[in-house]
Amino acid sequence: MKSVSLHEVAELVGGVIAGFDGDAKQLIITGVNTLSSADASQISFLANKRYSDAVAQTDAAAILVSDAAADPDGCSVIRVRDPYLAFAKLQRLFHPELPASGIRHDSAVIHPEARLAIDVEVGANAVIGEQVTIGEGSRIGAGCIIGDRVSIGKNCLLHAKAVVAHDCVLGNEVYLQSGAVVGSDGFGYAWSGQQHLKIPQVGRVILEDDVEIGANTCIDRGAIEDTVIERGVKLDNQIQIAHNVRVGAFTVMASQVGISGSTTIGKGCQFGGQAGTAGHLNIGDGVKLAAKSGVISDLEAGGTYAGVPAMPHRMWLKVSALMMKLPELWKAQRNR
Amino acid sequence: MKSVSLHEVAELVGGVIAGFDGDAKQLIITGVNTLSSADASQISFLANKRYSDAVAQTDAAAILVSDAAADPDGCSVIRVRDPYLAFAKLQRLFHPELPASGIRHDSAVIHPEARLAIDVEVGANAVIGEQVTIGEGSRIGAGCIIGDRVSIGKNCLLHAKAVVAHDCVLGNEVYLQSGAVVGSDGFGYAWSGQQHLKIPQVGRVILEDDVEIGANTCIDRGAIEDTVIERGVKLDNQIQIAHNVRVGAFTVMASQVGISGSTTIGKGCQFGGQAGTAGHLNIGDGVKLAAKSGVISDLEAGGTYAGVPAMPHRMWLKVSALMMKLPELWKAQRNR
Amino acid sequence: MKSVSLHEVAELVGGVIAGFDGDAKQLIITGVNTLSSADASQISFLANKRYSDAVAQTDAAAILVSDAAADPDGCSVIRVRDPYLAFAKLQRLFHPELPASGIRHDSAVIHPEARLAIDVEVGANAVIGEQVTIGEGSRIGAGCIIGDRVSIGKNCLLHAKAVVAHDCVLGNEVYLQSGAVVGSDGFGYAWSGQQHLKIPQVGRVILEDDVEIGANTCIDRGAIEDTVIERGVKLDNQIQIAHNVRVGAFTVMASQVGISGSTTIGKGCQFGGQAGTAGHLNIGDGVKLAAKSGVISDLEAGGTYAGVPAMPHRMWLKVSALMMKLPELWKAQRNR
Repeated sequence: MKSVSLHEVAELVGGVIAGFDGDAKQLIITGVNTLSSADASQISFLANKRYSDAVAQTDAAAILVSDAAADPDGCSVIRVRDPYLAFAKLQRLFHPELPASGIRHDSAVIHPEARLAIDVEVGANAVIGEQVTIGEGSRIGAGCIIGDRVSIGKNCLLHAKAVVAHDCVLGNEVYLQSGAVVGSDGFGYAWSGQQHLKIPQVGRVILEDDVEIGANTCIDRGAIEDTVIERGVKLDNQIQIAHNVRVGAFTVMASQVGISGSTTIGKGCQFGGQAGTAGHLNIGDGVKLAAKSGVISDLEAGGTYAGVPAMPHRMWLKVSALMMKLPELWKAQRNR
Repeated sequence: MKSVSLHEVAELVGGVIAGFDGDAKQLIITGVNTLSSADASQISFLANKRYSDAVAQTDAAAILVSDAAADPDGCSVIRVRDPYLAFAKLQRLFHPELPASGIRHDSAVIHPEARLAIDVEVGANAVIGEQVTIGEGSRIGAGCIIGDRVSIGKNCLLHAKAVVAHDCVLGNEVYLQSGAVVGSDGFGYAWSGQQHLKIPQVGRVILEDDVEIGANTCIDRGAIEDTVIERGVKLDNQIQIAHNVRVGAFTVMASQVGISGSTTIGKGCQFGGQAGTAGHLNIGDGVKLAAKSGVISDLEAGGTYAGVPAMPHRMWLKVSALMMKLPELWKAQRNR
Repeated sequence: MKSVSLHEVAELVGGVIAGFDGDAKQLIITGVNTLSSADASQISFLANKRYSDAVAQTDAAAILVSDAAADPDGCSVIRVRDPYLAFAKLQRLFHPELPASGIRHDSAVIHPEARLAIDVEVGANAVIGEQVTIGEGSRIGAGCIIGDRVSIGKNCLLHAKAVVAHDCVLGNEVYLQSGAVVGSDGFGYAWSGQQHLKIPQVGRVILEDDVEIGANTCIDRGAIEDTVIERGVKLDNQIQIAHNVRVGAFTVMASQVGISGSTTIGKGCQFGGQAGTAGHLNIGDGVKLAAKSGVISDLEAGGTYAGVPAMPHRMWLKVSALMMKLPELWKAQRNR
């Protein structure tokens, strides 16, 4: 197990130790834990005020707190600008990603015309198609299926049973959770008079660098052009991205969001769980969308929206509060 | 095919036969069927009044009815306290679970350091990792992937293509439907100023005894501590359980529910389909939540809630009825 | 690459060329593309007015437009009754389905008692159970799992990692996208007083001819009788169809819809994304349901509905508009 001194921890997170009497270079830290579970060799953190009461009881060696926090009361703290970010950095220190081992399991089916960098790791029963390329440092989990002509960059991690269909492109440091499907057919049909005629979906899916796709999330391939998930986007589990969608860089979506076809979403957006948008819309940069919202028209950049149909969040707060007063309103009306 | 007498059926379900003239020990029963499809050797049941009209037409040997039901009119009945439970017991009699065969398919990849009880059954192309333990009577379906150090109890059934990621723990009699993902990474990032920095998710998922997880449902592993699904919980298909969640014993959730991170759900709750909760909430024991509800605050034990934001169900009934009267209200207001 | 003359294109789609000066039998067409990306050897189309502005800039050889469209202004068009259908026909011409190759990958596990037509194609690591039958022209993707006694018709296409559980039946020309689960257990339990007793789900799933099932969509098997998806139905990704449901012919559902148990849905319905219905309902033929609707009662044929609870769409338009005016209504009331 990795271990570092409290002093080194403070340096790593750019923090200032307070309320600590001993020698910070001598105190060995072996990990991070919650306030209630941390022991005297572990760091804890307070990133959500909800948990402030647990501070007094913690056994942690020190607590990562905000610069603005009150003086520590009988416990050691490390003051940082962003305790949550500091926590993230420490977790990454104590739990680094494993390097790719270069081992390909005997049961994996790798097409002779696939080109894998020397250290690429391939799990049991994975299938890698014709003319696939995979960059160095990448790990392909057990049972993954990589279709023909797929391109996967460096240091990617595909968890067990991810699927990447033919011709799709993954940049560097792309993570797919289990059951993610990249490159399913878009949902396109034309009514012939007798049946829904399937329209071949001939676009690809492009996942740029540093994208993560959640478990059982589906990204449909484009009808003609590509579906594009720009760099740094993080999609939680069970999200549906329809064909021809573009999701702007660093946008984050919580679980079970659904984006309909040909909608363009800006950079740095944040969508709550179970939100959805209609097709062919433009959602501006930095839009925040509350959970369960339903968007039926373009949304301006920088706004916060909620409700079905989605409206400015401030308005939704009023409207939803007044919905609760409808009985009162109705009664007043009837009594007149 | 199993067969028992009508008399034995009545004993098994603790019921009383009425309206039957023959010798109940002589009438052979071979199964259970719907009112409209049952033949003279089958039992049927009336558990939903919606289907009362079908009673007169049925050919069933006898109908499981409630103690409180009216006297049978020309057909035989078995009076029981709970017809649906009696139906369940009979279906289990006529369709018992197959015992584990101990057969491991040649194509399955089982790590030499995995320890499987002698009768454990492993399907084709399944993958079982290092130091996995699997208890007696358990069956692992074709194409399942079991990560390193997973512990699976006795008499579990994993349908084809279920995934259990490293270090997760399944108790006894746990059932996973196809495509279920247990132990995907929780959705945790900290913004570094340049990118969303992934926070290693180092907790596990614990599924206690008698838990069933639906098809393509995802249970994320905890960020630090564990995500826990207590005993007897039943989750339908396509449900999302985020990191650090605890779901109390015997709670039941219908399809497409989403539970955000660090929320605690009480025992014996019932959630309708497509409902969702925000994170870091406490939902009390026995809470009933209507389909499509959106919960944004703690909910008291024993209550029934509906709507977005979730409110007491009784209030929601009023509010949603009055929403329909908004045009009338608006008109009255304008005419003043 | 396939290529045909502009004249042949017009004949294929039953259209009339206008605004074209050259010899339509000499101009070679090699494909279809969007207005903005098409080159001089490609056809484009205008099926959505939203994109009308792009017409002036296109380099396409000709644009598929509606009979009713204005005269072309400096560009060639093909007038057709339905430009989107014409586009579909051309895409199918230029991107025909590959024929089944008859190749079964060495790593596929095919039970000796399965009967596959001579040209059936089976991908790497697929598993095909006992007594399965698969008709001519069908292709089974890598990693698919086909349970015992499943029947699959002619010219079906199962993408990588689709699951069809035991005893289910697929007609001809059925398409399953990756991760689709056909035949998971329905969600049926009876409370015993101590636990939720699982009710064996002994029905099947029947997918009739020309059905397509989206990625990670789940169709539960019936409790006693079958779950039936009638011919020509198209289901998008991540849809949940519970046990005993019947979906009428040619009905189309967008992503993330949930249909509860024992509900019957008519023919030719159109459901928007994230809509849901309660169980045991009857939804008439031709019903249109807006995205995110929640249906709690039977719906008459031919209607268009929206909202939670679902109401006639026209009413929902009024109600949702007046919700936004609640602050105004409230203020007026208080000032009286």
